[in-house]
Amino acid sequence: MGEISPSNGQVDARRKSCWYEEEIEQNLRWCFALNSILHTGATQYQDIALLDTKPFGKALVIDGKLQSAEIDEFIYHESLVHPALLHHPNPESIFIMGGGEGSTAREILRHRTVERVVMCDIDEEVVEFCKSYLVANRDAFFDSRLELVINDARAELEKSEGRYDVIIGDLADPIEGGPCYQLYTKSFYEDTLKPRLSDDGIFVTQAGPAGVFSHTEVFSCIYNTLKQVFKFVVPYSAHIPSYADTWGWIMASDSPLTQDAEELDLRIRQRIKGENRYLDGKTFASASMLSKAVRISLANETQVYTEGTAKFIYGHGAGHKFQSSG
Amino acid sequence: MGEISPSNGQVDARRKSCWYEEEIEQNLRWCFALNSILHTGATQYQDIALLDTKPFGKALVIDGKLQSAEIDEFIYHESLVHPALLHHPNPESIFIMGGGEGSTAREILRHRTVERVVMCDIDEEVVEFCKSYLVANRDAFFDSRLELVINDARAELEKSEGRYDVIIGDLADPIEGGPCYQLYTKSFYEDTLKPRLSDDGIFVTQAGPAGVFSHTEVFSCIYNTLKQVFKFVVPYSAHIPSYADTWGWIMASDSPLTQDAEELDLRIRQRIKGENRYLDGKTFASASMLSKAVRISLANETQVYTEGTAKFIYGHGAGHKFQSSG
Amino acid sequence: MGEISPSNGQVDARRKSCWYEEEIEQNLRWCFALNSILHTGATQYQDIALLDTKPFGKALVIDGKLQSAEIDEFIYHESLVHPALLHHPNPESIFIMGGGEGSTAREILRHRTVERVVMCDIDEEVVEFCKSYLVANRDAFFDSRLELVINDARAELEKSEGRYDVIIGDLADPIEGGPCYQLYTKSFYEDTLKPRLSDDGIFVTQAGPAGVFSHTEVFSCIYNTLKQVFKFVVPYSAHIPSYADTWGWIMASDSPLTQDAEELDLRIRQRIKGENRYLDGKTFASASMLSKAVRISLANETQVYTEGTAKFIYGHGAGHKFQSSG
Amino acid sequence: MGEISPSNGQVDARRKSCWYEEEIEQNLRWCFALNSILHTGATQYQDIALLDTKPFGKALVIDGKLQSAEIDEFIYHESLVHPALLHHPNPESIFIMGGGEGSTAREILRHRTVERVVMCDIDEEVVEFCKSYLVANRDAFFDSRLELVINDARAELEKSEGRYDVIIGDLADPIEGGPCYQLYTKSFYEDTLKPRLSDDGIFVTQAGPAGVFSHTEVFSCIYNTLKQVFKFVVPYSAHIPSYADTWGWIMASDSPLTQDAEELDLRIRQRIKGENRYLDGKTFASASMLSKAVRISLANETQVYTEGTAKFIYGHGAGHKFQSSG
Repeated sequence: MGEISPSNGQVDARRKSCWYEEEIEQNLRWCFALNSILHTGATQYQDIALLDTKPFGKALVIDGKLQSAEIDEFIYHESLVHPALLHHPNPESIFIMGGGEGSTAREILRHRTVERVVMCDIDEEVVEFCKSYLVANRDAFFDSRLELVINDARAELEKSEGRYDVIIGDLADPIEGGPCYQLYTKSFYEDTLKPRLSDDGIFVTQAGPAGVFSHTEVFSCIYNTLKQVFKFVVPYSAHIPSYADTWGWIMASDSPLTQDAEELDLRIRQRIKGENRYLDGKTFASASMLSKAVRISLANETQVYTEGTAKFIYGHGAGHKFQSSG
Repeated sequence: MGEISPSNGQVDARRKSCWYEEEIEQNLRWCFALNSILHTGATQYQDIALLDTKPFGKALVIDGKLQSAEIDEFIYHESLVHPALLHHPNPESIFIMGGGEGSTAREILRHRTVERVVMCDIDEEVVEFCKSYLVANRDAFFDSRLELVINDARAELEKSEGRYDVIIGDLADPIEGGPCYQLYTKSFYEDTLKPRLSDDGIFVTQAGPAGVFSHTEVFSCIYNTLKQVFKFVVPYSAHIPSYADTWGWIMASDSPLTQDAEELDLRIRQRIKGENRYLDGKTFASASMLSKAVRISLANETQVYTEGTAKFIYGHGAGHKFQSSG
Repeated sequence: MGEISPSNGQVDARRKSCWYEEEIEQNLRWCFALNSILHTGATQYQDIALLDTKPFGKALVIDGKLQSAEIDEFIYHESLVHPALLHHPNPESIFIMGGGEGSTAREILRHRTVERVVMCDIDEEVVEFCKSYLVANRDAFFDSRLELVINDARAELEKSEGRYDVIIGDLADPIEGGPCYQLYTKSFYEDTLKPRLSDDGIFVTQAGPAGVFSHTEVFSCIYNTLKQVFKFVVPYSAHIPSYADTWGWIMASDSPLTQDAEELDLRIRQRIKGENRYLDGKTFASASMLSKAVRISLANETQVYTEGTAKFIYGHGAGHKFQSSG
Repeated sequence: MGEISPSNGQVDARRKSCWYEEEIEQNLRWCFALNSILHTGATQYQDIALLDTKPFGKALVIDGKLQSAEIDEFIYHESLVHPALLHHPNPESIFIMGGGEGSTAREILRHRTVERVVMCDIDEEVVEFCKSYLVANRDAFFDSRLELVINDARAELEKSEGRYDVIIGDLADPIEGGPCYQLYTKSFYEDTLKPRLSDDGIFVTQAGPAGVFSHTEVFSCIYNTLKQVFKFVVPYSAHIPSYADTWGWIMASDSPLTQDAEELDLRIRQRIKGENRYLDGKTFASASMLSKAVRISLANETQVYTEGTAKFIYGHGAGHKFQSSG
């Protein structure tokens, strides 16, 4: 008597009693056991939380949607940034639409060729929140090459006069009525964005889920819209564990985008400080060779985003990739 | 463009994305939305957490089981303490088996007659945790009438020589193999506890769930065991919202326990400092008149807790009412 | 090799993989492990499902809200029906507003004095669903004393000329904008319902959750509204495990409602066929003696339901007690 | 009055009240809204259920673990079967270890070259369950080229005298102490399996999760074990939405496995009846080019499965790919 030896069962029960839940779609729920709720807050535009999750480490959540998780955000951000910069002969000036989390800037600033990065996010408080709490991005936020602009990305590009080697879209998905829809339309690409690209400039954007089924939500339509505006368009994808889905990005340019795996690996060694964890030549070769189901579906897509049309994406929606500039 | 007005839907989604979950029974789950996880820790005996929940305020959780919640712990603790003290003509000395949370002592110390309270809990770290974090009990912990003893309650009562007017059992339920089983047996009551009660002394114990179905887990058996040892035994119950069940307590004595509602109300006014929120004469009259289903079941109970028998209770089990002294 | 002995862990995991979930309130979730989904359907007014749950047996769910569960619906229906009929000297004719599930009629028809029961529910398909699937109520549905009317209860009472000994409200809670709000207003009680009661007639209604906190949602306000219209008003409550709350009913009449426990027990023996499982004299005495917190709150309630006011109840709301007649 | 218009909110709530939940890992939960629970049962070896889920259609669940879902099982089964058969010059005889669901046989039987398929599963009742309920596989179960053997796969291969062009492992993952561990060891591959392959025969096995993190559970170790036994080993992977992960397969042979995308497409057209939905030449080229993180990890793997070693995999474990033959 007097000796209480906690059974493992009890300890386990305790360990799993607090959960983060997200409805990926209306009928699909994804739940992470929680260690703690680190910070919560609300900005003018959105609600924001930093959670410490057991399966994926620290997780940034905006309006109830996971934005990025500590242990696998490198997949998203290496995939978003490096292919476009590596395909460009000498990327010096970069414009980020959104990106307030700081991770996109962090990856860009690893490129030795880069002299200037403009990060244009509409939500100053989110930027401040991330600057304070996301330790991994702190150096990036204080890099002298980074210019932080708090503005709507479209307004900023319209008033801008310079041209950029690479423009990166790190925005919420194009939901009809959502904050960023107008930053995915044919007219925006044609009239506002493309004039701000240098002659061999490259545009790349996150393009929503790209799974065997989920690519029809916005990925195929962003692809088809960019095809109306640019000569060369390269879609690619990668599975991101914390998103419970394969994610998509699309690169577009009027110059050919045809570096093979060996050339990419060479440029990685020459240009990028430190070691990539996810992306190298073969990874990109694989990522840009889509599966039969997705290839056919993209080829058959007819919809184009215009001011008058939109396609709905559930869940990874209004909140997703909060770097909203709409 | 540029205006992002967060829809209520999104805000709601965020508000409900973090949850505390408890399996009340194997097939029954009870979940509270979380504001934050205030503190977590592990003692020699058990794991402990203090959560800030939306429906029930701050909640103390031991080994994955809710112990008490800020907004309704007064129901449990007023029901545990006041009936016994009010039925005693002049309660001066009180012994608490368990009670490390401090709420039981807090309610006892509101009685003007009380001169000495011994709180005997086996887990020093839980007591320290509660002393630090449960603000509502701070005064009680520092009241000069309170003696805190870190020991097994049985060992303490065996070596003790004095006698108490009221002994209060604020212990985990009697699960076979659980930490407190031996503090609910006929032989413990007869040989150890009763000799430490004064002549008109009263024993009261929490007695597990007492719902229309759940009372068969341990309530009816504790009742029947006490009937073997004491002349007068009074079971009573109250619904506690955060427990998702009706809870039970049992009062026992060799003196009659027959105060009517008016007499109880008079004694409350005379003896108790401050205002009770839950318990008064009519509340106790109602609480001690059990429903037909439970009355019949108690009358028909034949099992007695001895060293050789035990009944299992799921969930509100080993961890429940952590003030373990076993 | 070749022998696969399933571990208990795996079996357990399987047993708990299908769940019914209900948000009792916005921040409070109640989940039952499922054996199977027996039937689902949609009527003109509402969605309906019959589930086989592990903790509570077969469960009727309307619009995502539990209506009644096999193992404890006797608590709700015995509490709704018997006190009113037992307080009446000789209840012969009964009118049920709502009640399409059939359980209320079943309990009424157990009374030997009863000659005529009118069940007036607006949703014919729900009645047919329950007639088909709720085996326990089948005899009641085919009892020759039962008249089933498909109509709005107010319209039916307005055009009705007879008078009833007991009128029973088995309706959804009075949510502003909900289907049944207008069946809880002072003017409805005064102008429509009371004229249809015989001189010593009794009205009883389910009155929503009646827990220490939840009674402020609608219970106290229904109570206060009835006090404006009837001389004698008796609120009472009982914990219903599958509702995860204490539930309330209110009885009202212009004749005194003062039978003591012994008289009730006598009338039960004389008038009711078969054995009650939950309700007897002492149970009602306890149920009608509310706890201090609730008594004070009822006494202080000032709101009256009129056509122009309403109080919101979350969850057990529009759908709860589907016997909508609004 | 009298009109009840169900709000969308209520309808939605109803739609999502029944859920299937699976713990992918201890701290990670994946939940599908349910339409219904079609069938449940228990065999000598395992518990089995057929669910109708909203996001993924009909889902086969064994011992609480999802085996395959109607809308995306084609990804798993096309990936398991076609690469091996297409790399073989003329696959006529095929042996399936496990495969009781019937989908693997179904894909094999689409190959015009195939003359004989032996499906060896230990659990007859699972095979009967699938034959009865999985309509899509019915033709396969009744194809005259299929021989169904109820036996442990190892015992069957040991007593067998013939040789097979392709042997396919469609078994639960190699968990230490699990039912199939011994069917993944170096000695089994060397002494039992390889002697039953024809000279240019190919072995392919499902190889557990192959995500950026999850590939270390068993994928890398199965790969390294096969490298000890076969001259040519090709790992490949694909994201399967209903598994919430990328899945892996490994093909092994002593003949080179070097068909390029065009040759594979040619053979698909020549040999396979009907149209593949997922797999074609480019899909396999992409699937077999692993990402940097996984490639490095596989290259550095040193563990080999032997009778004395094992690595644990959580969740998609003992139950996963139930076609157990251990």
